Amino acid sequence: MSLKLYVDRLSQPSRAILIFCKLNGIEFEEVPIELSKGQHRSPEFAEINPMKQVPAIVHGSFKLFESHAILRYLASAFPEVADHWYPSDLQKRAKIESVLDWHHSNLRRGSVGYVLNSTLAPALGLPLNPQAAAEGEKVLSASLAKIDTYWLQKDGSYLLGNSQLSIADLNLVCEIMQLEFVDEKDRDRILSPHKNVLKWIDDVKSATAPHFDEIHATLFKVNEIFQKQRSAGASS
Amino acid sequence: MSLKLYVDRLSQPSRAILIFCKLNGIEFEEVPIELSKGQHRSPEFAEINPMKQVPAIVHGSFKLFESHAILRYLASAFPEVADHWYPSDLQKRAKIESVLDWHHSNLRRGSVGYVLNSTLAPALGLPLNPQAAAEGEKVLSASLAKIDTYWLQKDGSYLLGNSQLSIADLNLVCEIMQLEFVDEKDRDRILSPHKNVLKWIDDVKSATAPHFDEIHATLFKVNEIFQKQRSAGASS
Repeated sequence: MSLKLYVDRLSQPSRAILIFCKLNGIEFEEVPIELSKGQHRSPEFAEINPMKQVPAIVHGSFKLFESHAILRYLASAFPEVADHWYPSDLQKRAKIESVLDWHHSNLRRGSVGYVLNSTLAPALGLPLNPQAAAEGEKVLSASLAKIDTYWLQKDGSYLLGNSQLSIADLNLVCEIMQLEFVDEKDRDRILSPHKNVLKWIDDVKSATAPHFDEIHATLFKVNEIFQKQRSAGASS
Repeated sequence: MSLKLYVDRLSQPSRAILIFCKLNGIEFEEVPIELSKGQHRSPEFAEINPMKQVPAIVHGSFKLFESHAILRYLASAFPEVADHWYPSDLQKRAKIESVLDWHHSNLRRGSVGYVLNSTLAPALGLPLNPQAAAEGEKVLSASLAKIDTYWLQKDGSYLLGNSQLSIADLNLVCEIMQLEFVDEKDRDRILSPHKNVLKWIDDVKSATAPHFDEIHATLFKVNEIFQKQRSAGASS
């Protein structure tokens, strides 16, 4: 049964799904939907996802959107995916669900609010909004502190003290990578207080090499372009 | 194994979990955590949920928070819960996950933003914020329109065109019931354009009677008090 992934590699949950499939040897066709070109607003894509957002998938004739729902589905539908990604044990699974649900109104909300309003908005035809950026940063920093002191427990490399990766680790780290869009000194200011988070990001990158860097290559390239524009702006 | 529910009946996801347990004959002890008295900020409750939010549960020695994670866990851990609440069929389940994940950044975000900033804030020691209320209403109305035209499909009473209730129906309707806090004319203005939503709310209420009204009684009482205060304010 064919699997199509409708994604933009500059979208954090799109990257999580691409890396997940590559790591687990799940065959797929990548269908690029470029947000900066408004391709998510086309009538053709509305047939795939009426919410006009990436990522979305089509597996055979089955259509699905929302990244957490997609990761749960792929982890369950493909027998080659190891149990640690989305454990069948009810209580272990429930703890991962708890992280994923918490993510929506905390890390994701803060990250999207900060990155969009401080940096990305003009590329999407929207104005920058310093007040919304400041509110986003507040939620983002509070969320990073919770990851640093609560979700990353002492007895393990990964979220919840787990010794192996779950879909929550992958999704949350891809979210934080969105800070590659912002100025280096802002990224350092926001991330550097959270030592456990920094170590965890490195651990997830290592455990998912070489796919992590490969799927993030477009983001790293855009980061370089933005950084050059900032330098040019600062010296002009 | 004992099940304790740490809840405030004025909190929408708390009510969803209480109704779910009553409907499914799951025995539990209700532990009231009154948000208006700041009981969620006590050191004792932080031992149950370090995020200091309701609902949270303790099942035997297993602690869990985040309402969607709790509903998934209860539906899976108690064999008396019928399959339609959280289907074991992967694709049916994935569609319900898609609604639940969508809910976080849409209906819930809009509802909380609107109700808190237009009405509830003073009761929690916060100032009203008309700008944030207006932004919340915009997200809320857009979300209700999506439920009305997309999630409620023509061929069934419930979300996704299902003929039986799922945990998503219960959770989303309890969210919308939070509009009981606001002035009647504002509630009507927001809800009345969405005829399928209004019918669905009635269908869910009927299907979950008498538990729905019983668990919402505290909310209805607070609504009456608020409405009287508004009338007194308007005539003074």
